[in-house]
Amino acid sequence: MKAAYITTLGSPDVITYGEMDRPVPGPTDVLVRVEAAAVDPVDTFVRSGAYRTPTPFPFVLGRDLVGTVAETGPGATGFAVGDRVWSHSMGHGGRQGVTAEYCVVGVDRVYHLPGDVDAARAAAVLHPAATAHLALFRHARLRPGETVLVIGGAGNVGRAATVLAARAGARVLAVARAETAPDCLRAGATAVVDHRDPDAAEQLRELTGDGVDVHLDTSGHQDLDAALALVGHGARVVLMAGLSARPVLPVGAVYPRDVSLVGFAISNASVDDLAGTARVINHGLADDAFPIPVTVELPLSRTAEAHRMIEAGVRGRIVLRPE
Amino acid sequence: MKAAYITTLGSPDVITYGEMDRPVPGPTDVLVRVEAAAVDPVDTFVRSGAYRTPTPFPFVLGRDLVGTVAETGPGATGFAVGDRVWSHSMGHGGRQGVTAEYCVVGVDRVYHLPGDVDAARAAAVLHPAATAHLALFRHARLRPGETVLVIGGAGNVGRAATVLAARAGARVLAVARAETAPDCLRAGATAVVDHRDPDAAEQLRELTGDGVDVHLDTSGHQDLDAALALVGHGARVVLMAGLSARPVLPVGAVYPRDVSLVGFAISNASVDDLAGTARVINHGLADDAFPIPVTVELPLSRTAEAHRMIEAGVRGRIVLRPE
Repeated sequence: MKAAYITTLGSPDVITYGEMDRPVPGPTDVLVRVEAAAVDPVDTFVRSGAYRTPTPFPFVLGRDLVGTVAETGPGATGFAVGDRVWSHSMGHGGRQGVTAEYCVVGVDRVYHLPGDVDAARAAAVLHPAATAHLALFRHARLRPGETVLVIGGAGNVGRAATVLAARAGARVLAVARAETAPDCLRAGATAVVDHRDPDAAEQLRELTGDGVDVHLDTSGHQDLDAALALVGHGARVVLMAGLSARPVLPVGAVYPRDVSLVGFAISNASVDDLAGTARVINHGLADDAFPIPVTVELPLSRTAEAHRMIEAGVRGRIVLRPE
Repeated sequence: MKAAYITTLGSPDVITYGEMDRPVPGPTDVLVRVEAAAVDPVDTFVRSGAYRTPTPFPFVLGRDLVGTVAETGPGATGFAVGDRVWSHSMGHGGRQGVTAEYCVVGVDRVYHLPGDVDAARAAAVLHPAATAHLALFRHARLRPGETVLVIGGAGNVGRAATVLAARAGARVLAVARAETAPDCLRAGATAVVDHRDPDAAEQLRELTGDGVDVHLDTSGHQDLDAALALVGHGARVVLMAGLSARPVLPVGAVYPRDVSLVGFAISNASVDDLAGTARVINHGLADDAFPIPVTVELPLSRTAEAHRMIEAGVRGRIVLRPE
């Protein structure tokens, strides 16, 4: 089969597109013929080594696939050849990735795709939606009636978080560029503040009132003085980006108000937690609820280019398709 | 009655010892004749205004009392005149404090004292034990088999935390001065490191191995680089002291490992959470499990002096007794 893989960690240049043996499913695996593979920022960290995880070489990259079951192990119950399926946790922890014509997926990491959803549109949703759901509900324990402030509201994770929080009965305030405000409002935000606006701080103070319950910074800026000025009693500040950030933490704004800072990375999620996100994602896919834009579809042979685009800060999502 | 009270916020000089009207219990209150009142560091913050909370003047200071029921409101079921009782949440939130001959306590904040426990010894235990219990179990969700690192292991909260964690089946590592190591070991620590030891960092790295599950800094130093170097995957770092600390937070040591920083102040605890600590404290009092030293007992007339001693960093506990 054709695949985009690496034999050493490094820059996008280490990505080879070429022939590999088609993998053979184990007893509780399915073999999936890949229709679409999304490229996530974390894939570039796996490739470069910035995120350390077992990558048995030659190692195929990528977490998220949508495809069709081509073969099933005898213990892979619930799946049949021809089923349309997806996964969002391949390509790390020793598991080969998805930038290939075929991928072996353990039965506990594969889910049925609802209805006749387009493969590329679905692939684009998986990682941002799962990340947002884990952030809001698993780690920040968002409850109906609470307020969440989403920094980077027009980003992929930001849009997914806005949709999921609004659907769960929370009030969403978004920080995003003014030109993306309509996207944020359409996703379910009740107000959008442009951080470049000279009045941004004042607008946020007015909107947040006694302080938000959940603060979700998808941007990695991690200005904790600013964050803690906007959160209320018992708030949860999610830390999920900013690998090299070293902000000052004003301790006196944290413990006297029972505030927590909850860090998480989706790479650590258990299969049970991932399965929980899968149910929510499938509801959203069936409703076409996630306005996550597919910026470009590229053939699998251009995986290295996709990595370079991610590293250059492309907006929206890149989806690869086998030729 | 005699009482130590304030009519304005300020230094220990604002504390007056003199006559006040004996308070009258409401329908669901008990009137307690005070036998012993502990002095907590937080009492000095209430007095100075560093901790903002309603203090209707003239305001009696202090959170923790042990005493005898002198009168009961008709709805204060479960309590009778002559019962020995205690409370650990007076003196803030508009509730008058305990540095007086009598104190009105709501029935949801008063608990029976087990057996014939000495009033001063019991009073000394209440606040450190409740703080430690909330930190470990309510906020850091310590589980049996986990490891907790207690910074300030020989302090009042540190000793209580060591006892409670060890009784719950956790492994306790303590940081404390070498001369207090026997106290820490007696409380249940499995190892003690003196932070002044030149090898302290290396000793801690060896003892903590893959990293501790809970990091409890009772000292308020809040060196988060040091803390995060010693915690493991999924760890909870408790923030409970260091009102003016502004340490750097190395974000890259937090979220990739699902680490949280959980802030809390006992002043925010609900009556249900406080009642939970009361059950645990009563078990410990009945077993004489808490080695919290009473440094000095003083008459109520010397409350201002007690505040000065706390502010000077006295070790152990100060207990006041009505003359």
